[in-house]
Amino acid sequence: MPRRIIIIGGVAGGMSAATRLRRLDESAIITVFEQGAYTGFANCGIPYALGKVIEHDEELILRTPMDFKERFNIDVHVRAEVVNIDRAKHSVSVRTEGDDCIRQFGYDKLILAQGAEAFRPPCAGTDLDNITTMQTIADLPKAGFIGIEVAENLRKLGLEVSIVEYGSHVFPPIDGEMAEILHSELRDNGIQLFLSESAQEIDKSRVTLSSGLVLPADLVILAAGVRARTGLAKQAGLVLGMTGVRVNTHMQTSDPDIYAVGDMVETQNNIMERPAMLAMAGPANRQGRMAADHICGKTVNYRGNVGTSVCQVFGLTLGFIGLSTQVLRQLGHDPLSITVHPPDHAGYFPGSHTMTIRLAFRKETGQILGAQIIGKAGVDKRIDVLATAMQFGSTVFDLEHLELGYAPPYGSAKDAVNMAGFVASNVLRGDCKIVHAEQLTREKLDELQVVDVRSPEEFARGHLHQAVNLPLNNLRQQLATLDRSRSTMVYCQVGYRGYLAYCILKQFGFDVVNLDGGFKTVVQRGCQSLHS
Amino acid sequence: MPRRIIIIGGVAGGMSAATRLRRLDESAIITVFEQGAYTGFANCGIPYALGKVIEHDEELILRTPMDFKERFNIDVHVRAEVVNIDRAKHSVSVRTEGDDCIRQFGYDKLILAQGAEAFRPPCAGTDLDNITTMQTIADLPKAGFIGIEVAENLRKLGLEVSIVEYGSHVFPPIDGEMAEILHSELRDNGIQLFLSESAQEIDKSRVTLSSGLVLPADLVILAAGVRARTGLAKQAGLVLGMTGVRVNTHMQTSDPDIYAVGDMVETQNNIMERPAMLAMAGPANRQGRMAADHICGKTVNYRGNVGTSVCQVFGLTLGFIGLSTQVLRQLGHDPLSITVHPPDHAGYFPGSHTMTIRLAFRKETGQILGAQIIGKAGVDKRIDVLATAMQFGSTVFDLEHLELGYAPPYGSAKDAVNMAGFVASNVLRGDCKIVHAEQLTREKLDELQVVDVRSPEEFARGHLHQAVNLPLNNLRQQLATLDRSRSTMVYCQVGYRGYLAYCILKQFGFDVVNLDGGFKTVVQRGCQSLHS
Repeated sequence: MPRRIIIIGGVAGGMSAATRLRRLDESAIITVFEQGAYTGFANCGIPYALGKVIEHDEELILRTPMDFKERFNIDVHVRAEVVNIDRAKHSVSVRTEGDDCIRQFGYDKLILAQGAEAFRPPCAGTDLDNITTMQTIADLPKAGFIGIEVAENLRKLGLEVSIVEYGSHVFPPIDGEMAEILHSELRDNGIQLFLSESAQEIDKSRVTLSSGLVLPADLVILAAGVRARTGLAKQAGLVLGMTGVRVNTHMQTSDPDIYAVGDMVETQNNIMERPAMLAMAGPANRQGRMAADHICGKTVNYRGNVGTSVCQVFGLTLGFIGLSTQVLRQLGHDPLSITVHPPDHAGYFPGSHTMTIRLAFRKETGQILGAQIIGKAGVDKRIDVLATAMQFGSTVFDLEHLELGYAPPYGSAKDAVNMAGFVASNVLRGDCKIVHAEQLTREKLDELQVVDVRSPEEFARGHLHQAVNLPLNNLRQQLATLDRSRSTMVYCQVGYRGYLAYCILKQFGFDVVNLDGGFKTVVQRGCQSLHS
Repeated sequence: MPRRIIIIGGVAGGMSAATRLRRLDESAIITVFEQGAYTGFANCGIPYALGKVIEHDEELILRTPMDFKERFNIDVHVRAEVVNIDRAKHSVSVRTEGDDCIRQFGYDKLILAQGAEAFRPPCAGTDLDNITTMQTIADLPKAGFIGIEVAENLRKLGLEVSIVEYGSHVFPPIDGEMAEILHSELRDNGIQLFLSESAQEIDKSRVTLSSGLVLPADLVILAAGVRARTGLAKQAGLVLGMTGVRVNTHMQTSDPDIYAVGDMVETQNNIMERPAMLAMAGPANRQGRMAADHICGKTVNYRGNVGTSVCQVFGLTLGFIGLSTQVLRQLGHDPLSITVHPPDHAGYFPGSHTMTIRLAFRKETGQILGAQIIGKAGVDKRIDVLATAMQFGSTVFDLEHLELGYAPPYGSAKDAVNMAGFVASNVLRGDCKIVHAEQLTREKLDELQVVDVRSPEEFARGHLHQAVNLPLNNLRQQLATLDRSRSTMVYCQVGYRGYLAYCILKQFGFDVVNLDGGFKTVVQRGCQSLHS
C-alpha cells in the first residue's frame, strides 16, 4: 500500500516537505491543501514587488499547482481550508472555495505547515478596508523587518510614509544604540518616525496615536508582528507551547503521525536555550525537509536556531543573530559587549565603508550570545560568518583566529570579524577595561577625568562634555598634565587609539577605562547632552 | 631592566608584532630593521596601484617610520639589512645603506619576519632590466593570484598581455574544470593564455617558449611563486622545515629566544596535516601578534591554517580553501566531490547570478577538505562561511543545517552553501550516485544510456553526445521508452532536475547515475568532443 501523506499549507515548509517526500518515495500519494490562492510563492519578496523593485508580481510565483503535478506528481489544492482533523480516524475535513460540501481525506501521515498570521494590535478600526496586513518574514519577539521593508518600498514609490512603533526604537530586538543608526537612515530618506507610540484609533483618513497626535493616512499597514497559526492544531488536541505548536527534533507533534513545521511551531532557540517561534523561510524549508526524511525512515535531528537575519534599510544593511544586550539583560543574563567600527575592505582600496558591529558574549566563557551589524557594505557576509561560528558554539577567542579570505576588494588582513574578536577577547582577558556609551551621563562625565586622544581637528569638530584634548602621539610626553589620582576615561573616534592610550595610562598606574566604540558610538546614539 | 626586542622585517607580521609588543609593554625597547625603503605598507595592493585602481602609490604606505616612533615609540630603521645573527651573544649585525660600517645590536628576544622572495624560474635572461618580479600574496604550492591580478591591471591600462603558465591551467591549486571558467573570463577580456608552456629564454624584446613559440615582449613580469626567505635563519643555524623556518605554536624557532612569523615560516596546514609555507597577510599578522603575546608571558597557540584565499579576475571572483580534488588525489587521498551552480541571491530579485561551487570531502566522515567557488557575486561571502565552518571541523552534513541570513537582496531561503551541503550529503548518504564531467569520454557516452531531462529548447541549444531528450515532466509517462537493462546516466543543466530524474529512475529499478553539476559543468570544462 502506498503511503498517503497530507500536507496543510503550500508555501515554504509545506512544499519543501512535499517535494522531498516525492524524491524519497515515488509511490507515496501526496496531497497539499493551501487555504490561499497561490502556492509555492516567494513570501519574502512581497515588499519589493510592492515597491516595483521586482517589476511583475508573477515573478514571485515560483511554481503553480500544475507545475507540482507535472514535475512531482503532487496534488495541490488551493483555496482549500482544512476545517477539522480527526486524529482517531486519520482524516481531515476540507472546505474548498466554491464547493458547498466538506470532503474527507484520509492520511497515514499529516504535516501541518500553516505558517503565521499578522498580529492585529488592540486598536479601534483595524477592520476598515484601507487597512491591510503584511506578512512576510518576521522576528522574535516582535516585527520590524516587514514594517521597515514596506516603508522603504512605499517611500520609493513617492508616498509620504510614517512608522509608528510601540517600542522606543524600530526593530526592537536590537539594541537602542544600534537602532539609532537606522533611525537616521530612515529619517534621511524622508520617513517620519513616531517612537514609543501606538495607534489608539484608526479611521478612514487618519490615525490617532497614544500621545494624542493625529496623523492623516490614506493607507494603514499593520506590521506589528506575527503569531503562529495554531487554531487547527489546538482544536485537534495537539500540545502547544508558549509561542507555537510543540514538536520534537524530528518535527513530530504530540501525535507521532502528525508533524508540524515552519512559523507555526516553536523550536529550540539555542541562545535562549528554550523553545520559541521563529518565522523565517530558511528554517521552515529545512524543517519541511526533515519531516519528510523522518516519515521515510531517515533520522536527521533539527538542531535548533540562532535566529540569523538580514534586512535592507535603504542604503544600509542590518544583520542580526541571537539576542541583543538589552534583551539578554531582560532575560537575566549579565553579558559583556563590545562595539567596533571596522571597514568592509581595505581602506586603501576604493569604495571602503565602515560598519558597526556589536557583539554580546558570556563573561564566563566568551561564548557569543548575539551579534548586530549595520553598515553600507559587507554586512551580510560578516553576519553569515558569525552565524556559522555561533552554530559551532564559537567564543570570541575563536574569532581572533578565523582565517578569512583577504584581497583588497573584499576584506582586510585583519577582517572586521577578527577585529571584533580581538577587542572582545581583550575585554574578556582583562587586557582592556571599557565603559559603554549608554553608561555615560553628564554627571558621570563631570566626575571623571575625560581624555580625548584624537587630533585637535577632530576635537574641534565635536567632543565629549568636560574632555581635555591630548592627542595620542603626544600622550607619553604630556602625562604630567594628567591627574593620576582621578578615575580616567580615554576615548578616540572608534576605539582603537583609545585602546592604545589605555595601554599607556594603565602601565603608568592610572585607573583608566576606554570608551567602547569611541566618540562615533556616542554620536550614533544621538545623545546630544553628552557632547558639544 | 626593560627588555630589548629586535624585529627583522617591517611589513605585516613584523609590524603586528612590534605594535602588539608596545601595547603589552610600555617599557620595552623595540627596534625594527627593514631591508626595503618602506615599512608598514600594503603589499597586497600593489597590483591595483599598478592598474591605477588605487590612484596614488602613497595610499599603500599606511605608516612611516616617524608614525611608528610618535605613536608607538618604536625605532624603525629602513634600508637596514641584518647580515648576521650571533645567537650566543644575543646580537645582530646590521648594515645600513649609505653607512660603511656594520653595527651590532643586542636583543633579549628576536623576531624574524623577513617574508618571502619571488621565485625566478630556471630560464636564460631573467636578470635583464625589462624584467621585474611581483611579490604580493601567493599560494600553496604555486603562484597564481599575483600573475592574474597583475595581468588584469595591466590589461586595464590598455596593454597587450599574455600569461605563460607552466601548468595545464592558471591558478594550479584549483581543479582544471574550475580553472576553465577563469580561462574564458581572461580570454574574453583580451588576455592571451599560453598553458603547459614555460619561458626558455627572455631577451630585450621577446620571450621564447618551450614549444618554440616566440612572444614579443617589452616588459616581462615573473610571478612564478614565492619562496620563504630563510637565508639568515639558516646561517644562524635555526632548524628549517621543507618549505620554511620551523616554528612551534607560539611561533618560536628552535632557539627559544628567536621567533619567526609570516611567509618565511611553515605552519601546520590543517587539511594536509603537515607543516607548509603559507604566504598570506592575515595569518602573518596574527602570527606576529602571537609572538608578541608569548614574549610578554601570554599563552595563545597558533591553530594552523586552512589556506583561505580570494581573488578578483575581471568580473569574476575566485574563492578557494584547502585543497583541490586533483591535489588531494596527488597526495594519496580518495575524496568525494560535488559541483553545484546556485544563485547568489533569490532569482526573483533583480541582479541574481549563479556561482559554481565545488566541494571536496572525506568519504568516511564527510569532513570538508577543499572548497572552490567562482562567480560574479556573493563568492567572497560563501568562501568565508565555508572557511569558518572548516575551521570548526565541519562536515558536509553541517552545511545542510547552517542557518544563514536570508532576505531577497542577499541570499536564498536555501543558501548556496546549504545547497552544496544538501547535494554533498545526498552523495555521501548514498541517496544519489553521481558521475563527474571529468570522468566522461566519448567511449563512455557510447556505452551508456544517456538521458537529457531538460526541455526540448535547451536540448536543441546543445547536448551530450548520444543523449536522448526526455524532459523531466514527461519522464514518468515515458519510462517504457528507456531500456532498464542498460547503465543509465541522466543530466540536466545544473544538476537539480537530473537529481529528480535520478530519484524516479532509481525507484523504478534503473542502474542510474546523475551528472554532477549538469551540462553546464561539461560546457565550462570546454571539452567539446563530448557535446554538440
